[in-house]
Amino acid sequence: MSNADLVIKDGLVVIPGTGILETDIAVEGGKISALGGEFTGRKEIIASGRYILPGIIDPHIHLGIFGDLVSEMETETRSGLLGGVTTVGCYMGGPDPYYPSFSNTIAMTEGKVSTDIFFHLGIMTPEQKEEIPRLIEELGITSFKLYMAGIPGLIPDVEDGFLYQTFETAAKIGDGIIICVHAENPSINATYRAELQKVLTDGSLADWSDTQPNFSEEEAVRRASYFAGLAGNRLYFVHISAAESIRTLAAIKSANPKIFVETTSPYLSVTKFSSKGLLAKMVPPFREDASVEALWQAIQNNIVDTIGTDNVTQTLAVKQVEKGMWGAMPGYPALGTHLPTILNYGVNQRGVSLVKVAELMSKKPAEIFGLYPQKGTIAPGSDADLVIIDLDKTVKVDHRNLGSAGDFSLFDGEELKGWPIMTIKSGQLVVKDSQLVGQSQGKFLRRSIG
Amino acid sequence: MSNADLVIKDGLVVIPGTGILETDIAVEGGKISALGGEFTGRKEIIASGRYILPGIIDPHIHLGIFGDLVSEMETETRSGLLGGVTTVGCYMGGPDPYYPSFSNTIAMTEGKVSTDIFFHLGIMTPEQKEEIPRLIEELGITSFKLYMAGIPGLIPDVEDGFLYQTFETAAKIGDGIIICVHAENPSINATYRAELQKVLTDGSLADWSDTQPNFSEEEAVRRASYFAGLAGNRLYFVHISAAESIRTLAAIKSANPKIFVETTSPYLSVTKFSSKGLLAKMVPPFREDASVEALWQAIQNNIVDTIGTDNVTQTLAVKQVEKGMWGAMPGYPALGTHLPTILNYGVNQRGVSLVKVAELMSKKPAEIFGLYPQKGTIAPGSDADLVIIDLDKTVKVDHRNLGSAGDFSLFDGEELKGWPIMTIKSGQLVVKDSQLVGQSQGKFLRRSIG
Amino acid sequence: MSNADLVIKDGLVVIPGTGILETDIAVEGGKISALGGEFTGRKEIIASGRYILPGIIDPHIHLGIFGDLVSEMETETRSGLLGGVTTVGCYMGGPDPYYPSFSNTIAMTEGKVSTDIFFHLGIMTPEQKEEIPRLIEELGITSFKLYMAGIPGLIPDVEDGFLYQTFETAAKIGDGIIICVHAENPSINATYRAELQKVLTDGSLADWSDTQPNFSEEEAVRRASYFAGLAGNRLYFVHISAAESIRTLAAIKSANPKIFVETTSPYLSVTKFSSKGLLAKMVPPFREDASVEALWQAIQNNIVDTIGTDNVTQTLAVKQVEKGMWGAMPGYPALGTHLPTILNYGVNQRGVSLVKVAELMSKKPAEIFGLYPQKGTIAPGSDADLVIIDLDKTVKVDHRNLGSAGDFSLFDGEELKGWPIMTIKSGQLVVKDSQLVGQSQGKFLRRSIG
Amino acid sequence: MSNADLVIKDGLVVIPGTGILETDIAVEGGKISALGGEFTGRKEIIASGRYILPGIIDPHIHLGIFGDLVSEMETETRSGLLGGVTTVGCYMGGPDPYYPSFSNTIAMTEGKVSTDIFFHLGIMTPEQKEEIPRLIEELGITSFKLYMAGIPGLIPDVEDGFLYQTFETAAKIGDGIIICVHAENPSINATYRAELQKVLTDGSLADWSDTQPNFSEEEAVRRASYFAGLAGNRLYFVHISAAESIRTLAAIKSANPKIFVETTSPYLSVTKFSSKGLLAKMVPPFREDASVEALWQAIQNNIVDTIGTDNVTQTLAVKQVEKGMWGAMPGYPALGTHLPTILNYGVNQRGVSLVKVAELMSKKPAEIFGLYPQKGTIAPGSDADLVIIDLDKTVKVDHRNLGSAGDFSLFDGEELKGWPIMTIKSGQLVVKDSQLVGQSQGKFLRRSIG
Ligand SMILES: [Zn+2]
Ligand SMILES: [Zn+2]
Ligand SMILES: [Zn+2]
Ligand SMILES: [Zn+2]
Ligand SMILES: [Zn+2]
Ligand SMILES: [Zn+2]
Ligand SMILES: [Zn+2]
Ligand SMILES: [Zn+2]
Repeated sequence: MSNADLVIKDGLVVIPGTGILETDIAVEGGKISALGGEFTGRKEIIASGRYILPGIIDPHIHLGIFGDLVSEMETETRSGLLGGVTTVGCYMGGPDPYYPSFSNTIAMTEGKVSTDIFFHLGIMTPEQKEEIPRLIEELGITSFKLYMAGIPGLIPDVEDGFLYQTFETAAKIGDGIIICVHAENPSINATYRAELQKVLTDGSLADWSDTQPNFSEEEAVRRASYFAGLAGNRLYFVHISAAESIRTLAAIKSANPKIFVETTSPYLSVTKFSSKGLLAKMVPPFREDASVEALWQAIQNNIVDTIGTDNVTQTLAVKQVEKGMWGAMPGYPALGTHLPTILNYGVNQRGVSLVKVAELMSKKPAEIFGLYPQKGTIAPGSDADLVIIDLDKTVKVDHRNLGSAGDFSLFDGEELKGWPIMTIKSGQLVVKDSQLVGQSQGKFLRRSIG
Repeated sequence: MSNADLVIKDGLVVIPGTGILETDIAVEGGKISALGGEFTGRKEIIASGRYILPGIIDPHIHLGIFGDLVSEMETETRSGLLGGVTTVGCYMGGPDPYYPSFSNTIAMTEGKVSTDIFFHLGIMTPEQKEEIPRLIEELGITSFKLYMAGIPGLIPDVEDGFLYQTFETAAKIGDGIIICVHAENPSINATYRAELQKVLTDGSLADWSDTQPNFSEEEAVRRASYFAGLAGNRLYFVHISAAESIRTLAAIKSANPKIFVETTSPYLSVTKFSSKGLLAKMVPPFREDASVEALWQAIQNNIVDTIGTDNVTQTLAVKQVEKGMWGAMPGYPALGTHLPTILNYGVNQRGVSLVKVAELMSKKPAEIFGLYPQKGTIAPGSDADLVIIDLDKTVKVDHRNLGSAGDFSLFDGEELKGWPIMTIKSGQLVVKDSQLVGQSQGKFLRRSIG
Repeated sequence: MSNADLVIKDGLVVIPGTGILETDIAVEGGKISALGGEFTGRKEIIASGRYILPGIIDPHIHLGIFGDLVSEMETETRSGLLGGVTTVGCYMGGPDPYYPSFSNTIAMTEGKVSTDIFFHLGIMTPEQKEEIPRLIEELGITSFKLYMAGIPGLIPDVEDGFLYQTFETAAKIGDGIIICVHAENPSINATYRAELQKVLTDGSLADWSDTQPNFSEEEAVRRASYFAGLAGNRLYFVHISAAESIRTLAAIKSANPKIFVETTSPYLSVTKFSSKGLLAKMVPPFREDASVEALWQAIQNNIVDTIGTDNVTQTLAVKQVEKGMWGAMPGYPALGTHLPTILNYGVNQRGVSLVKVAELMSKKPAEIFGLYPQKGTIAPGSDADLVIIDLDKTVKVDHRNLGSAGDFSLFDGEELKGWPIMTIKSGQLVVKDSQLVGQSQGKFLRRSIG
Repeated sequence: MSNADLVIKDGLVVIPGTGILETDIAVEGGKISALGGEFTGRKEIIASGRYILPGIIDPHIHLGIFGDLVSEMETETRSGLLGGVTTVGCYMGGPDPYYPSFSNTIAMTEGKVSTDIFFHLGIMTPEQKEEIPRLIEELGITSFKLYMAGIPGLIPDVEDGFLYQTFETAAKIGDGIIICVHAENPSINATYRAELQKVLTDGSLADWSDTQPNFSEEEAVRRASYFAGLAGNRLYFVHISAAESIRTLAAIKSANPKIFVETTSPYLSVTKFSSKGLLAKMVPPFREDASVEALWQAIQNNIVDTIGTDNVTQTLAVKQVEKGMWGAMPGYPALGTHLPTILNYGVNQRGVSLVKVAELMSKKPAEIFGLYPQKGTIAPGSDADLVIIDLDKTVKVDHRNLGSAGDFSLFDGEELKGWPIMTIKSGQLVVKDSQLVGQSQGKFLRRSIG
């Protein structure tokens, strides 16, 4: 292993499922070629005493919702890269059939994305449900999403019959496909919203939380899990936010190993009492402290499988906080702070282990979405996507340094402790000390149901 | 206790919660005045060796759906009386506010009903929900019904938000009010119906069963129970039909004593393979054998609390079996065979005890709906509603003998063993050997939330 | 019903399983001959507004442990009668075969006991286990007891193998027989006792509690329930005392309806911090407040089936409190305060209903031990054992008024509110205002496995 | 990585927790120095297409029970090595204090053992329990064993009080110590044995199974788990054999992550109907087919954590099958067939994955007993203990080829498919095609509680 392209020397390598090893990493042709030591390479990074994680996979982002899709492909994956994210899973959807126009969308990523990218497609119509086999076969897309509660005016709700039929379709295809579900009860939400609208012409972030109560999420989780148990498909709950849902998922998961749970780094960091006010308006909304603590506990107890961001590129001009609780738009950028918030609130403040971080932020997203072991670990043969971190580095967040097209951050002005100091993508050092230092070429990740 | 109005001598008196006692019953002023012996009365019935049950309470009938309301008040309560039913609970509903017009409906019962009668009112609109307190206060109606799945074209579905709000309203009022729920998932039903309509232009009774699958009921049971657990109200599931629902209710009831379960005597007697074919078309549909057995087991295990009929006056001309599976109307008359089917299939065929029969067909309906101990037991002070049975009497069912305006029976031509031989209503012998022998004056039962 | 032997007029009659009825009770030949009214009798008791319970059945007493058996038959049943107890279940045991010598013991009761009496026999040897069928058949004894932990030096521990074999023997005989178990783990007790003996030469009542920790009882409850679940026999836990046991029994009972739970009126009234100190030394020991509250809660939740006393005639001379924690003898008399403590602590202080009191202190003991409906209810044909109570009567306890040969009470000096004011045994008024006013003739109750 | 001591080229490397990677392994100084490729070494093994597992760790063997301890150290570890086992955990015990004489035992291993070895010590007396801290500190022994049921005449039973106290001792020390438990109910066993002795003077292997019924194990599992839940210690059940225990452990483990379960390769391969007859006499006994299937299912469901052998060197002369069911001695050698039986019955017959095999036979034993990641995985820095297997190799078992001092095998004459073809110990090729080809130097593994 002399004359590798790159050798990272003397790091503390965090291998999910194995532990932390003090070892060199050799890279050739964009892939990890060897672990061990002592290696020599044409380039060397001395990582003495630094922890090295597999590149972070954010399984849940959105692009092009409020801005230009191609432009956001560029800005948002760059923001991810600055924060140690090397792969993103992006939700796309609309009322029309996907095949064959979506191949155009895939083609657009070329030369634009600096992280690798894969897509999840929203299934909203019977036609789209029919397309699933060929979307898998011909486009290499193996994950699909159903909105039990959509966004009023934007995304329609899916009724139980259609939900269940889609589960059955997935179950027939097998465990290579995974169905993602946004779990809330639309009727409960609508009722609470209407009740509040009678008495509040405007409201705070905490009031917004009351428009979609915690039990609306828990109920939907119970119902979707029930249907999935009957149908036999793999089911993935996106952005779980409430303590009540976690409690119920603990029981559900112990009986059904095909159910997976995602939360987000913002839900682990922010409550409805945030000083950011309506800038933090989101769907589902931020919850009270007890839910944040329940989510962290669920990470320790293996109830949560993955952590995403639900990143939406959002600007003050679009968000329009000045329109008040009812008028402001939901969403926020979060890719640039994804890993730092977990290092700060999880590792440094709550003693979460780095092995756990690597598991929930890299290995399990890769496994669940069919990318493992190309992604998700540090092993010979895997893509050389790596992030070197400094647990003691403290930075006061300024959104201007985060690379996103968004012009605010939920964490602006807050000091976070624990940051990536180098991001290596496909064997190339692309970020150093939060600055781009190389040209990263991301690619579309075609998957198969094996 | 000499010179009672009536003394029933030497019967085996089945007292729910106590057991079977060989004792005389004395009646004065329409009420039971004494138990014991030896009493003498101006009239005497020698019941030596016969079992005497408290008058059967059918908590679930409909009147006036396909025929004239006032006319059916007369014919159907008469049919009940012939079969040992002395009190009925009748579901009424419509889109308009109930108050004050429903007092007219109550007034209509006078002189028409030969059993006692109480009403449950369907809550379908926010206005009706608002009326609840005064319906209780001024009309003495304390039970209300929500249709999670209505009847397409006739009764609208209730959405979860409205369901939950109504539960909360009930919880605030307290345990004197009870919310009845028709539990099915309307979207699952609609989806299965649509799928079947694509492939079947007509179908059998068994095919009809596939349009509303068992798990549609189970899911709704789980969801309504979840909401009731949160809200804290008393909840009563009408006409549970599927083994799957029973399984789930066993767990639910052990955790929440405020949940009650009704099944019907037809669901305990008939399967989807009935030789009656589409004449037995019903909503929910008849199920397979395993569900019938699960319901009987649930009776032994205290999962089922009450047995009703879901009686609808139905005629061949209205039912229109000739229109096939999709066109025939649902429903059937069942009051006249209510007790005989339970005596035949339960007591004689499966060894269900008469104490259990008295509990599920009289005491618990009375307790749950606020009529106990005026109704539901045999004790000094209770109304003298009694039914004397002959467990060995075998009769081949002929609907013409059952007193209903309906012109068929699910059991026509079938021999049932175990029949009432005398019905005593308010202390008066009104039915003897399936013939009316007295003029029975039923009354509206006004209830309060105590 | 004119000229009954006795008529109790206008009382509020508490009928377990039915409710509270305002009705007269007629008595003839020592049995209840009629309920209702208006009756006239040769004797009449005007009970206007007073609650009338079925005679209390204490299913758990001991006689002749420290004193003379025949003498205690006289004094202790008299004490019971003064307190409203009309039937006692007495545990007897010894190393020798019971048959045929135990018929002598039965014969001794004649003319001595003033309550009715039935016996439970301890099964300690294989020979005794073999005797069970003929003890049932020839002596009419259908309940037997196993000590998982005996009393060191007095009663041997039963090992699991023997316990399980006895359960199997019972299961074969059927549900007419019931096995009572003293549930504690003898090895845990011995270990904790030995540890404490190393450090304490004497100790308080609270220290005594530490010699038999709560979990020693819980573990034994779990183990015996496991064996009973396998064998299929009916199992009755005597004197359950700890919150931990209750918690575990809630789960166990929901899965196995053949398991029954007794607690005692002292365990519902007294904690290890009692001012009576070592006078309250007992096996199992008194517990902390949380256990007392858990027991009351278990009464409301139907986890506890019966309430006994575990009465042992005890005197200061025998108890020898002056010998300290290790030397004092266990036990106390409790029959005379049995009902008053439940009326005081349960009905008056915690709102427990009188129907519940009648169920746990009369109906269920009768049902479980095969005496129902001769005992345990107020119905035509039942024995006329009745107790009329005054819920407002307050008395400061003085053991000298309680009729026992014991010369102290756990409640001496304490004011209890709620007392029996008349006890009627076999139709005869025998106690009035805590004074014997008639000659009560108790009898041995022979049972069968029906 | 040129000139490594050894390079294993082109194998399919099974890394528990990661997956199967096609990669080279470089070894230096007895440890794995690098994974990846292409490496060159002074020695090279071409493993193209062969699976390479981490060296198998058998956590449960016995030495010196019926034969000479030192001699068996030599013969039995050699037998292990031939079968791919590179580390053994050996149970030792006796009535005397261990400290300081056990350092002699440790010293004896030097030059004798060809696998690495660690010891578990039986705790049978209070003195031994007191020694635990210094046995950890000074001898590096961190695992201890309690026999709830001993071997009559050889090993005494431990009573619950002592068991619980030892659990508490362990809980205070922390999660670095682990308590192993032989879980059977001695009283149930004694009772069943005595019953059978009354009727059988001799019996078959299946009869022997009846002397220690399945529920004897399940009950002990429940009881020990209950005590461990209270105390808070880590608990390891050795040699679980019965379906009933598995069922109960599924529930227990979901609530308590500190409970671990071992089964043995013989229990996964042999039933009580084995043609080997009393040669297979064992404690606990072999069970019926359903238990074997339940154990395999438990492996798939993560209820079983580790697989051992419970190897006892046994000879026909000592076993004395001719003495019949009651007289024959228990035990058998199983080290040499340990991995082949799992490859045959698990991988080849039931589709168990090799990643699962590596996890249960190497990683988890290492983790649970404090040897990870020195042992239990294939990673830079780990000991270079490796076993290369051929899943298609079929061999008819002949105990004469297995290297043990035992002179029979449970599998003599049976064809097993799936065998190790090379064993590498500390970087040295020591076994090739079931022949010793090198001098393996095993060592005592000193552990600490971290
Ligand atoms: Zn969403
Ligand atoms: Zn999203
Ligand atoms: Zn309905
Ligand atoms: Zn209906
Ligand atoms: Zn006891
Ligand atoms: Zn006792
Ligand atoms: Zn063992
Ligand atoms: Zn062993």
